[in-house]
Amino acid sequence: MSEEKKQGLTPISELGEFGLIEHLTGNNFSVNNSTVKAVGDDAAVTDHENDVTLTSTDMLVEGVHFDLSYMPLMHLGYKAAIVNFSDIYAMNGHPKQLLVGVAMSNRFTLESIEEIYQGIYAACKQYGVDLVGGDTTSSTSGLILSMTVLGSAEEKDVVYRSGAKPTDLLVVSGDLGGAYMGHQILEREKQVFKANPNAQPELKGHEYILEKQLKPEARKDVIETLAGLGIKPTSMIDISDGLSSEILHICKQSEVGCRLYEEKIPVDESVYKICEEMNLNATTIVLGGGEDYELLFTAPIEDHKKIETNPNLTIIGHITEAEDGVNMVTRGDQLIELTAQGWNSFDKE
Amino acid sequence: MSEEKKQGLTPISELGEFGLIEHLTGNNFSVNNSTVKAVGDDAAVTDHENDVTLTSTDMLVEGVHFDLSYMPLMHLGYKAAIVNFSDIYAMNGHPKQLLVGVAMSNRFTLESIEEIYQGIYAACKQYGVDLVGGDTTSSTSGLILSMTVLGSAEEKDVVYRSGAKPTDLLVVSGDLGGAYMGHQILEREKQVFKANPNAQPELKGHEYILEKQLKPEARKDVIETLAGLGIKPTSMIDISDGLSSEILHICKQSEVGCRLYEEKIPVDESVYKICEEMNLNATTIVLGGGEDYELLFTAPIEDHKKIETNPNLTIIGHITEAEDGVNMVTRGDQLIELTAQGWNSFDKE
Repeated sequence: MSEEKKQGLTPISELGEFGLIEHLTGNNFSVNNSTVKAVGDDAAVTDHENDVTLTSTDMLVEGVHFDLSYMPLMHLGYKAAIVNFSDIYAMNGHPKQLLVGVAMSNRFTLESIEEIYQGIYAACKQYGVDLVGGDTTSSTSGLILSMTVLGSAEEKDVVYRSGAKPTDLLVVSGDLGGAYMGHQILEREKQVFKANPNAQPELKGHEYILEKQLKPEARKDVIETLAGLGIKPTSMIDISDGLSSEILHICKQSEVGCRLYEEKIPVDESVYKICEEMNLNATTIVLGGGEDYELLFTAPIEDHKKIETNPNLTIIGHITEAEDGVNMVTRGDQLIELTAQGWNSFDKE
Repeated sequence: MSEEKKQGLTPISELGEFGLIEHLTGNNFSVNNSTVKAVGDDAAVTDHENDVTLTSTDMLVEGVHFDLSYMPLMHLGYKAAIVNFSDIYAMNGHPKQLLVGVAMSNRFTLESIEEIYQGIYAACKQYGVDLVGGDTTSSTSGLILSMTVLGSAEEKDVVYRSGAKPTDLLVVSGDLGGAYMGHQILEREKQVFKANPNAQPELKGHEYILEKQLKPEARKDVIETLAGLGIKPTSMIDISDGLSSEILHICKQSEVGCRLYEEKIPVDESVYKICEEMNLNATTIVLGGGEDYELLFTAPIEDHKKIETNPNLTIIGHITEAEDGVNMVTRGDQLIELTAQGWNSFDKE
C-alpha cells in the first residue's frame, strides 16, 4: 500500500491522465455565449463574433513564482487564474475562457490537484470566465502551472501599451507595494519557523498585505469604472513586475518620456509601517516590487477631473516628450531617472 | 567569468526576461490577416472574423515527454509546435497563431533557447502560423515547454469526437507505430552509449522511424485532401497516445461501438523489421504506442470509394452500435476487446 493510500489520499496514477481531467472538469459548465465547446475534444471552440480575441499565457513555476510552504494550493489556483485575467483587463478587454496546464510530480495527490482546481473555479466564477480546456501531465520535480486566457473586446476599445502622448496623465488604480511586502512577511515567518518549528507565525495586523500577496484580485472593476466614466486610456499595462518597469514599457512602446511624482504614489499605511519595521524604503519597494496587479494607464488631460474625483484612481504623473527622459521627482524635489529594476525571474536562479 | 562565457555562450541572466523575449521575437513578422497584434503587449490580439476560434494547449516536460540526450533542441521546438497544430487539424481547422511558454533552468544558455526558437519558427513557417506571444521564465530544474495554438474554421466545418454513427468507416492517415519504434531505437542506442561512450550509434536503416519520432509532421495535407474530396468526417482525433486509446475516445464520446481489423492497420515495413529484431508485436505497438500524429476519423460509408482510392488514407474498420463493444478482429479471426493502453505520462513516474 502506498504512503498516500495509508493517509486516505489518492495517488494521481490511479486515475491516469484522462480520468483525472474528467474528474476535475466533470461538473464544469459554461456561462458565456462565446463558449461553443469547452473541455473534452482536441481543442476548445469559441466564437467572439464581432469582437477581437485577446490571448495571454503565463507559466508559474514552483520555487520561482510560488512557495508551497506558505501558499495554500487553493490560493495558488486562484492567483494563477487572476494573474492571467489581469492581462486581459490591461488590454481593456474581458476574460471569457481559460485553459489550464498542470505538470506535477508524484508527491501530489488527487486531493492536492483538486484544491488547485477549486481555486481556479472560484476565480472563474468570480470573473465570469469558462474553463474550456487544458493539459495535465507529470513532471520530474515540482509543480508547474501554465494558464492561457482568451478574452474579447470590440477592436476600437482595445488599449495597447503604445498609445501614450505627451501631456497625458499617468494614473494607477488602488495602492502599490502591498503584495511585495506580504511576500517579505511570509519569508520572514518562514525563516523563524525553520529556526524554531514550535514558533507561531506572527501574521496579525498584516492581513491587508498578506491578502494582496496570497489572494490578489484583477481590476475588473476599474475597467468597468473607466467605461462608465467614458474614459478610454491611451495606453495601459498591469503592474505585475513593479511600477518602474511598467512605466518604462509604456514609455518605450509609446516613444515618450514621463515624469512620476514620488509623493503622489498611493501606498497603504500598513506598507509604510512594515517598511519602517524592516528598515526598507517604501518607494524602492513600489518601483521594484511586483505582483500588485493594479492597472497603470495614461489618459488625456481632459479626463483630469473624472479621474481625480474617483477614489480608486490616483494621478501619479504625466507623459512628456521622449527627449525629457523617464524620471521621478522625489519628495526632496530631486529628479532621478527610472531604471528597470522590476521583478525578474531569472535573477532568482 | 562564468562557465558559459568561457565557452563563448551567453547566460540567460545577462539579457533578463524582457531582453530575451525581444531578442527571440524581434525579427518576427505575421503572415495571417487574423493576427491583429502579435508579441509585445499584455495579450495578443486576433480576429478570426466569421470563423470560430479553436484553442489547444500542451505542456512538454523534460524527462517525461522528451530526452535532450537524443532530442536536438531545434527538433524539440519543431515537434512541440506541430503537436499543437495537429490538435487543430484534428478539429478540421487550420492553425493560425501560436503562443510559446518556456521555463528553463540556468544550465540553458541564450544559444540553446535560440535553437528551440529556430525549430518553432521553422514549424510556424511550414504551416503558415504566426508566433504571437508567450512567456519565458526560469525553472528550478529542467526545461518545460508550454504551447498554445489558436486555429480557425467555419463553425459548420468543425469536426468533434462525438459524431461517429454506426456503419461509418473508421479511417486512418499514413502509417502507425513508427514514432514509438523510433523512440525504442534511440533508447537502445542511449543504453549502448552509456555502457561504452566510444560506441557509435547504429541508426542507419532506421531513418524513417527516427524522423517519425524526432521530426514528426502534422497532417495539414490530409485536411486539405478531405476538403478537396468533399468529405466531412463525422468524428476525428489525432493519434497522440495510441490507436486503441483514440478509438476509445471516439466511441465513448459518440456513444457507439467499433470493429477494428488488425490486418488492415497500416504499418511501415521498417516497423515490422525492427519489431522482429526486438521481439515485439507490431500490433501491440500500434495500439499502445503514441506520438504518430496521424489523423483517425470516421466518415459515412458513401465516401468508401473516395477514401479507398487515396494512397494517404486506409480504412481500418467500421463503427457499430454501442452494445457491440469496441473490438479488434485479429489476423487469426478472434475478437478481442480494445482497452486504453495508450501512452500515459503518469505511468512514467
